[in-house]
Amino acid sequence: MTSLAKLRKQIDFIAEVDKLKGVLRRTSPIGMERKENSAEHSWQVVLAALIFQEYANEKIDLLKVVKMLALHDIVEVDVGDTFHYDKSNQKDLFSRELAAAERIFGILDQPQKNEYLNLWKEFEKRETAEARYAAAVDRIMAFIMNSRNKGGSWSANKITIEQVLEKNSHMQDGAKALWEMAQLILKECSAQGYI
Amino acid sequence: MTSLAKLRKQIDFIAEVDKLKGVLRRTSPIGMERKENSAEHSWQVVLAALIFQEYANEKIDLLKVVKMLALHDIVEVDVGDTFHYDKSNQKDLFSRELAAAERIFGILDQPQKNEYLNLWKEFEKRETAEARYAAAVDRIMAFIMNSRNKGGSWSANKITIEQVLEKNSHMQDGAKALWEMAQLILKECSAQGYI
Repeated sequence: MTSLAKLRKQIDFIAEVDKLKGVLRRTSPIGMERKENSAEHSWQVVLAALIFQEYANEKIDLLKVVKMLALHDIVEVDVGDTFHYDKSNQKDLFSRELAAAERIFGILDQPQKNEYLNLWKEFEKRETAEARYAAAVDRIMAFIMNSRNKGGSWSANKITIEQVLEKNSHMQDGAKALWEMAQLILKECSAQGYI
Repeated sequence: MTSLAKLRKQIDFIAEVDKLKGVLRRTSPIGMERKENSAEHSWQVVLAALIFQEYANEKIDLLKVVKMLALHDIVEVDVGDTFHYDKSNQKDLFSRELAAAERIFGILDQPQKNEYLNLWKEFEKRETAEARYAAAVDRIMAFIMNSRNKGGSWSANKITIEQVLEKNSHMQDGAKALWEMAQLILKECSAQGYI
């Protein structure tokens, strides 16, 4: 027999994280005026992780990567999106995000709460092959979107090539080929005057 | 050595399906005025498939389910969203969607093109355990969203309880427990006057 109470909590969780559709990022969908939200972005990184799997440096559990990416931004329901280059909002960011993760995954019963909370922590720490690959996929999205939006969030926020290189070089730890492509895209953007 | 040309096509694919962020559905995010788009919806069904996996009737390959759901709406880039209860748009729908799938997955090199095209077809046919479970998860979303939006797309489009039961009873083929919960939610919506 299905526990109705348990299933109701799982539905409450799905309804709670629906709020991610209202969390706006700095990036716009390609060719659109509006900003994209973290729910759309989460879908796109899941799809990208599937498409790019052959470029992972190490053997990975792809389902685990997908889980991490499907939930990686869920804490933003409480703390909002933090722009990758925004230093002013970094203070206590991890502890604020951890509190959010505890609250939101806490809607679920155990052991599901801990499974998802641990996946979120694993993604954040970037210490496993899956987390490193997931982070590389998450980061290449900015290169794809900004190169097709004439600089997008880079030009709008006056981000320099040096900043982009510094903040994203960890991509090589998860997927060398994606990091090489990212640098190539950056050069092309520079040649176009997008950054 | 990575084939740059191949990776460029994979990036073109990710950029092409970005258009899904502009395909609007009949449903609104919970408590929001605007309609949700198919990219946001695709993220939410992927997450729901992970959360609800214990309710699949049969043993499933969850990664395959995730792949199906991440790409199940991609054809809408060409043909738009078709409301579940809209009979007027059903004519030739499958052949139009198939042409879209051929074009969009055709951006990818083989064997990736065929892998994804076949996953899309498998989802549409609903003949495997994974496709049946994925369809059940896709359909329970309307129950979750509409019950929290005071009837949502059901009341806005004058959909009856009988229509909802008829169009969604296939959920029991993939996940009996989710179908039971869906019927319970429908009863609660009826009691509230939402449908």
